[in-house]
Amino acid sequence: MITRLALFLSTAWVLAAAEPVLMPQPAKLERRTGALTVDSNFRLAFARPAVPRLQRAATRFLSQLRAETGIPVLYLPAPATGSAQLLIDCAQTVDTPSEKLGADESYRLEVTPQQARLTSKTVTGTLRGLQTFLQLVSVNDKNFSAPAVLIEDSPRFPWRGLLIDVTSHFMPVPVIERTLDTMEAVKLNVFHWHLTDDQGFRVESKVFPKLHELGTEGDYYTQEDIRHIISYARDRGIRILPEFDMPGHCATWLIGYPHLASAPGPYNIIHTFGIYDPTLDPTNEQVYVFLDKLIGEMAALFPDEYFHIGGDEVTYKHWKQNPKIQAFIKQHNLKNEPGLQTYFNQRVLPIIRKHGKKMMGWDEILHQDLPKDIMVESWQNHESLVTAAQRGYQGLLSFGYYLDHLKSAGAYYSVDPFTGPAKVLTPEQTKNILGGEACMWTEFISPETIDSRMWPKSAAIAERFWSPATQTDVADMYRRLDAITHRLDFRGARHNLNYEPMLRRIAPSAPVDALKTLADALDPLGIEHREVFQKYRQDTKLNRMVDAARGDSESVRNMESAIRRWQAKPNNGDEAIIRRQLELWRANHARLEPYFPSSYLLAEFKPLSEELAQVAAIGLEALEKGHDQAWRAAQLARTEELAKPHLEVILAPTRAVRLLLQR
Amino acid sequence: MITRLALFLSTAWVLAAAEPVLMPQPAKLERRTGALTVDSNFRLAFARPAVPRLQRAATRFLSQLRAETGIPVLYLPAPATGSAQLLIDCAQTVDTPSEKLGADESYRLEVTPQQARLTSKTVTGTLRGLQTFLQLVSVNDKNFSAPAVLIEDSPRFPWRGLLIDVTSHFMPVPVIERTLDTMEAVKLNVFHWHLTDDQGFRVESKVFPKLHELGTEGDYYTQEDIRHIISYARDRGIRILPEFDMPGHCATWLIGYPHLASAPGPYNIIHTFGIYDPTLDPTNEQVYVFLDKLIGEMAALFPDEYFHIGGDEVTYKHWKQNPKIQAFIKQHNLKNEPGLQTYFNQRVLPIIRKHGKKMMGWDEILHQDLPKDIMVESWQNHESLVTAAQRGYQGLLSFGYYLDHLKSAGAYYSVDPFTGPAKVLTPEQTKNILGGEACMWTEFISPETIDSRMWPKSAAIAERFWSPATQTDVADMYRRLDAITHRLDFRGARHNLNYEPMLRRIAPSAPVDALKTLADALDPLGIEHREVFQKYRQDTKLNRMVDAARGDSESVRNMESAIRRWQAKPNNGDEAIIRRQLELWRANHARLEPYFPSSYLLAEFKPLSEELAQVAAIGLEALEKGHDQAWRAAQLARTEELAKPHLEVILAPTRAVRLLLQR
Repeated sequence: MITRLALFLSTAWVLAAAEPVLMPQPAKLERRTGALTVDSNFRLAFARPAVPRLQRAATRFLSQLRAETGIPVLYLPAPATGSAQLLIDCAQTVDTPSEKLGADESYRLEVTPQQARLTSKTVTGTLRGLQTFLQLVSVNDKNFSAPAVLIEDSPRFPWRGLLIDVTSHFMPVPVIERTLDTMEAVKLNVFHWHLTDDQGFRVESKVFPKLHELGTEGDYYTQEDIRHIISYARDRGIRILPEFDMPGHCATWLIGYPHLASAPGPYNIIHTFGIYDPTLDPTNEQVYVFLDKLIGEMAALFPDEYFHIGGDEVTYKHWKQNPKIQAFIKQHNLKNEPGLQTYFNQRVLPIIRKHGKKMMGWDEILHQDLPKDIMVESWQNHESLVTAAQRGYQGLLSFGYYLDHLKSAGAYYSVDPFTGPAKVLTPEQTKNILGGEACMWTEFISPETIDSRMWPKSAAIAERFWSPATQTDVADMYRRLDAITHRLDFRGARHNLNYEPMLRRIAPSAPVDALKTLADALDPLGIEHREVFQKYRQDTKLNRMVDAARGDSESVRNMESAIRRWQAKPNNGDEAIIRRQLELWRANHARLEPYFPSSYLLAEFKPLSEELAQVAAIGLEALEKGHDQAWRAAQLARTEELAKPHLEVILAPTRAVRLLLQR
Repeated sequence: MITRLALFLSTAWVLAAAEPVLMPQPAKLERRTGALTVDSNFRLAFARPAVPRLQRAATRFLSQLRAETGIPVLYLPAPATGSAQLLIDCAQTVDTPSEKLGADESYRLEVTPQQARLTSKTVTGTLRGLQTFLQLVSVNDKNFSAPAVLIEDSPRFPWRGLLIDVTSHFMPVPVIERTLDTMEAVKLNVFHWHLTDDQGFRVESKVFPKLHELGTEGDYYTQEDIRHIISYARDRGIRILPEFDMPGHCATWLIGYPHLASAPGPYNIIHTFGIYDPTLDPTNEQVYVFLDKLIGEMAALFPDEYFHIGGDEVTYKHWKQNPKIQAFIKQHNLKNEPGLQTYFNQRVLPIIRKHGKKMMGWDEILHQDLPKDIMVESWQNHESLVTAAQRGYQGLLSFGYYLDHLKSAGAYYSVDPFTGPAKVLTPEQTKNILGGEACMWTEFISPETIDSRMWPKSAAIAERFWSPATQTDVADMYRRLDAITHRLDFRGARHNLNYEPMLRRIAPSAPVDALKTLADALDPLGIEHREVFQKYRQDTKLNRMVDAARGDSESVRNMESAIRRWQAKPNNGDEAIIRRQLELWRANHARLEPYFPSSYLLAEFKPLSEELAQVAAIGLEALEKGHDQAWRAAQLARTEELAKPHLEVILAPTRAVRLLLQR
């Protein structure tokens, strides 16, 4: 059995190794003959004088190459350009002061057995090409090498973002750094920093120090931290988009500055999550004086041309309760509270412009009275993006890319800014859609778990934003993602590295492979399905099995693929894979059984462990011949029962067993 | 079978959980009734005003507690001392400017179900006690808690060191930081920094900048880095001992300052390893002028009272070849070259004293003409330490603690400064032995592999230096080490975390558990046995299976224990463990077979993979009844053949199978 299985896997491997594993897939790739060897004599040269940022990029590239190969490549004095294994020909010889939306990111990478030549118009284009080159390098029967190719590449969308909410749970500087390192690897180019909310005001203000002093328990970024992160991101060709959410989500602003509020205080940091009432008072002229100073300070700190004012989820309750505000609405003919919010946005807009920025907000800010140079980020639905584009506003899609929904990489991958409701748009209108953003809200996510909620799935989203629209094969995406995910380990990402330590912490004496088998079988639910189980707070413990479980697991996906192949064409190899996995699942509960008394964190998931054994037993029985339709129907009903949400997870193998039963 | 096995493991677990798992074991520990719950309401208070270092220690302690439990414990304003779960009563209310040899490190830790009270005379004592408390906290059927105990603890030796050679391979600042974090966890208190050698001068000198500029390829610590590391170590109660090796191991000094040499230059960085001839010229007065300035600069940078001048492995070749030096030896009646080295040491000593330091060196410096306040570090043999102690010199043992020999934790654990040749010492003389140092020389070790060469075994050495001499049970040490090793993951140590990424890099398409089964079966050889296989250089690739393999593996040790138990008293549980492991080993080669063509790094170890299957087959056959003595002898011979060094490793399961055959 083993030998036949091995033979099968061997063939699979040979097929997989035949082409380079890249993500995002380049716009154009041609395979050529041969390969360029990468060894410790690997040298890099510049065809033209390199600006400092490019020199730093080369140093960083070499250390990434060292990490991903284990080969001690040194940055030694450039040899003659002809003898360098990698020649960088970047036309940009004077650096820009900061990264700009729409800047040229294209590059051309030609690899021959003698040399790789990376040509680009800009430093940013070079950065993108270096990451492609790194992904080309892999081990083979003789050495590490990059296959000979010609790649001509440029992004589909100019705005390819990732948002992190650092208010619900603070994310220390190293988390942001490693996120930027990982973003660079997959060519994401905007880090959207959700800095302020009811749960925290996470940036130091020298002008209004009570914002961060009273708006956090000391967990905030100093301005020095911010400058460091901006320069760190800039080196990687990533823009930093700051968000200061207003006029709602503002409780932490009002603790130290209650005179800006729409209702009398006192105000406090809110340690729970949801939509709360504290709101700036748009009828108070002091609010605009305050915002002018604050936005002035922050506009000087953050160099990006865009400034995100949030604008989402204003409850209007305090506006409704405040007679002065109601009188103002009447007096200014604003109709209602949404009208007042538009008034507020119209007052904020010139302040933002005065400080040299363009205004951006969530789709709630969309209103015909606002000028066309504001940018709208659609989070409520895809339709708002379509409406914005039709009305001539530029916009981004975030709806469908909410990472806290913990969907599979395949699910995120299938969302496209141009499909669904966007199909009604004219070609001219589609130009208003500049890209999208993956959004990592952190209500139930800690610095320890954030990586596994972002990665590797954000690499699939990055491909959606970068690669041609025709790139839609989910199976092919997963094949590449399962390789790329381990490349990210060498960039400091912790989605793989934190897994075992978290499992061992749950039950130190239990065999870790049995813990993994259980955790791999669990798809944790997204935030939208968790409320029925428990109300999350800032101090909720995130050390449970549901926090360690990563979902979308390779073992379950491989099982599903094997079943589909086997159902299409029965063969011993696939049947062996299916049977082996089912037996592993069925036996796992007995392996864990002795350890449930040792840990309440493990005991909590004992029901799931039992259910895993049960569903595996159904699957094994289904492999046997001679079952009638009634038996299948009964087992399917039982499987559907086991597939229901339980303890904030779904038992993923039920998907595979359902497939087997539905045959 | 599984159920019986599970039952067996269950019993083992209950026994193991009955007592706290501590390392180093405290001098005195009494179990009391009950336990102190650790939850998110955990609060810490000080019984007296805390100096800033103690406040930082408390913050760090809470973040370590958060990491090791996953419980979001916050550092909130101290409650009344009575209500704090942890009360710190530290008598030291004025901090010392730096850590001193022999400073009080004792503490008393009393844990009741209501409160833990940590009492100490010094901040350093508190630091040690906090680490003990952290190890007490573990998960159980209800929560995380610390068992009620009374611990009274103090170290056996005042000098408990770890040396890292940063010249053979440079170790960037994060490597040093995480090493200090891990040292703190196991109460090591001296970081010996081997900063200069023929392969690099790794510290910035502002007085003689050509030292680091020409003595490295840019890989050195700035003085700012040094100050940062000193303060980082100081916070953790760790002294930093700098070593400037002289008059040999000095090639990098002479590149920029060839006038100090004993032979005409030019000199270069040496990229290979061994003992080389470049030597300072002790007869040249300019050497002492230079050393006065350099030592003056470095004595001001490093606050520790000791200054290590190395003094090892001087070849004397250039002294022999230089007529001027030979004339000097005659003229000053120095007899020979060792006499000249003593002369050199006698000249350096007043310079070191003048700059406020005490002199320290390797055992080569030991000479009766030197005064008694120098410190000797014995690396050549244990006898030199005994001689030094007899003559009234203080000394440390490093012989037997060379981590680059890659011995097992058990082997290092069995070395004791007071045993072996030291048994002849009088009680008074033993007082001259202040402790020892684990030495991490890095000829074949990179920043990626260094953790697995130091940890977890250095925790066993730390216990040797800290705990009572009676603490010698190797099996008990391993039981605790196998738990402590995973605690270190939460301190940033990479010995566990780097394992899978390194294995995946060797063969990305192969199943990682099969790669692990192979690598776990390999004991990499120490530096002293590697020369027959290959000559290491600074640019040798350290990405092979031998670099990923960690040795001393839990699976092999568990197998040996099971065999010993089973041989003492045959039982089904142990037999099942033995058989399952042997079957896993035997089947592993077939699992890897398809992947050897995919990677030269995996293919290199194909012979070992085959041999693993062979030795496992012998073991399985040996489990069967009815073999005669001749069969056993023949299989034993075959096993001894398989146990020979091969590809720089030893096949560890041969140890287990040998046990089976020798029955």
